[in-house]
Amino acid sequence: MSQVSIRDDEVDIVIAAIGPDLTSFLEEWRAIFSRFHLIIIKDPDVKGELKIPGGFNYDTYTKADIQQIIGPSNAATFSGYSCRYFGYLLSKKKYIISIDDDCIPAKDTKGIQVDAIAQHINNLSTPATPFFFNTLYDPFCKGADFVRGYPFSLRSGVSCALSCGLWLNLADLDAPTQALKPELRNTRYVDAVLTVPARAMMPLSGINIAFDRELVGPALLPSFKLAKEGKFRWETVEDVWTGMCVKVVCDHLGYGVKTGLPYVWRKERGDAIESLKKEWEGVKLMEEVVPFFQSMKLTPAAKTAEDCVIEIAAAVKEQLGRIDPVFTRAADSMVEWVQLWKTVKTRT
Amino acid sequence: MSQVSIRDDEVDIVIAAIGPDLTSFLEEWRAIFSRFHLIIIKDPDVKGELKIPGGFNYDTYTKADIQQIIGPSNAATFSGYSCRYFGYLLSKKKYIISIDDDCIPAKDTKGIQVDAIAQHINNLSTPATPFFFNTLYDPFCKGADFVRGYPFSLRSGVSCALSCGLWLNLADLDAPTQALKPELRNTRYVDAVLTVPARAMMPLSGINIAFDRELVGPALLPSFKLAKEGKFRWETVEDVWTGMCVKVVCDHLGYGVKTGLPYVWRKERGDAIESLKKEWEGVKLMEEVVPFFQSMKLTPAAKTAEDCVIEIAAAVKEQLGRIDPVFTRAADSMVEWVQLWKTVKTRT
Repeated sequence: MSQVSIRDDEVDIVIAAIGPDLTSFLEEWRAIFSRFHLIIIKDPDVKGELKIPGGFNYDTYTKADIQQIIGPSNAATFSGYSCRYFGYLLSKKKYIISIDDDCIPAKDTKGIQVDAIAQHINNLSTPATPFFFNTLYDPFCKGADFVRGYPFSLRSGVSCALSCGLWLNLADLDAPTQALKPELRNTRYVDAVLTVPARAMMPLSGINIAFDRELVGPALLPSFKLAKEGKFRWETVEDVWTGMCVKVVCDHLGYGVKTGLPYVWRKERGDAIESLKKEWEGVKLMEEVVPFFQSMKLTPAAKTAEDCVIEIAAAVKEQLGRIDPVFTRAADSMVEWVQLWKTVKTRT
Repeated sequence: MSQVSIRDDEVDIVIAAIGPDLTSFLEEWRAIFSRFHLIIIKDPDVKGELKIPGGFNYDTYTKADIQQIIGPSNAATFSGYSCRYFGYLLSKKKYIISIDDDCIPAKDTKGIQVDAIAQHINNLSTPATPFFFNTLYDPFCKGADFVRGYPFSLRSGVSCALSCGLWLNLADLDAPTQALKPELRNTRYVDAVLTVPARAMMPLSGINIAFDRELVGPALLPSFKLAKEGKFRWETVEDVWTGMCVKVVCDHLGYGVKTGLPYVWRKERGDAIESLKKEWEGVKLMEEVVPFFQSMKLTPAAKTAEDCVIEIAAAVKEQLGRIDPVFTRAADSMVEWVQLWKTVKTRT
């Protein structure tokens, strides 16, 4: 696999509007976002008109659009943070980048504003190296290379299907950790990108990600809903579940997942102590979810991301369904999502 | 596993003297090394008296000592960079730190001198987390924690058995890469430590490492000698081989391997183009070595690092021995090393 070139018009930036007024968010990102097409999905639970400043190239979708396209029965799948997945579904671009609306551009250690979009594009356009760990991090970063002992046959790498960015200031902790350490802020800017090794699982955060929609789009799915899911990241695990689906798919199909740069700056919001009641279920369920995905093996019959998701859903139902009904619902939702994905693809 | 406290007198710093005059090397490290006991091994091929400045607490060993303890037939095992392994063998301390004699202390991004010994001790005294990847790097670093979705049952981590440090300036490239990119220098200071996930292999570099001798000492072994091995790092792969042995042992016994901080500053030496003739064999052999270690599975009967090395040696002989005689020699040398390790341990 060699380096690919990504044009601006091959990228959609998908924004989930968790509140109606995107003015200050978009003003912060204006210099970085304005060259790209935006897809803005309004959380169906949010009241009031969307406020979007001028000068952006965008399409917006609301509850009415969701209901029109997928029918009223499934519309609940796209509430809260999950509304962004409706944008993933409707996009026709090869690449999607998604950033939470409580994040603003970060600054690097020299005080220079980070162009998160350019960095994500760089991560996706250079190969990933999941089959052997390079101790000097991403060998395709400027000034870097493969370390002595790295097999030459593995140096061409594989396509990078997913780029997971990080966060300064408010880190993406769960509610118990955030409540126990209310003063904890992430101030460490780690100037690195690395490929997460094959077969290693990691907690994807949907706050700041980019992916190749053609390669793994159907695996980024809104299927794991907690019974008492809230409107703060720490009250959800939908993205953590999604991340393990994508990682299993990438490992099976031979794509790579990168993590590290770019950072975004997360602003404060929410009351972690108040959230504890809701989060505890997510924390408990992870004890079952992680070993499940770690041991998940797909069959050679799974040749596309859609195939892989269907196989994972069947295993979820069979192995996890008996533990908690949340897993059965997730499995059903995964199958519905793949059907929806195929329907929308055929229609357009 | 909880954090352990490491006393200065539990640490040996092992230095391989590739040249006779250690004056400038030790003066550079004086403030950092002088609290610790040093074991200095003189490369048996080096002529002239060792020159060591005053004020250090050390023991030195030369060719005569090596021959006295292990007999003349095996003494060749300890030539060149491999002479340090004689120090690993004779040490009675729980922890060993080893730094090449062409390295000086690095400076961090703020221009402050890095205390590589303190950082290695920190890496070894805090748990490692090989079973799930934490996207905010080592959760036991100051100011860090586990990211949302990280299973609580895995947060106590496991003992860290090996800490692999990195290098600024002259990176640890192989001779072909160094020769192709003679101007390439590593200037990126990545302020992070991370655990290499279980089952992922990486190219250990022996330049700047620390390990728990009681847990994995016997797996750090001088067994993989190229036919035309030279005196520059890029002409050797003994440490890369060793690293994969240790990683397989750690994965099997449930210990962790960390990589990242601390950095050292590597000074220039050698002529990469001149070295190309020697290195090429190492580069070629890695194509066989890496898949071998990636697929290596030890049996439940292997309960100690010694047991593990014996099992690995048998597999090397059986699976790699037919490809190249260098592997048969390595397998024999691994078995001899474990015998030597046991003999020395009994004697002291």
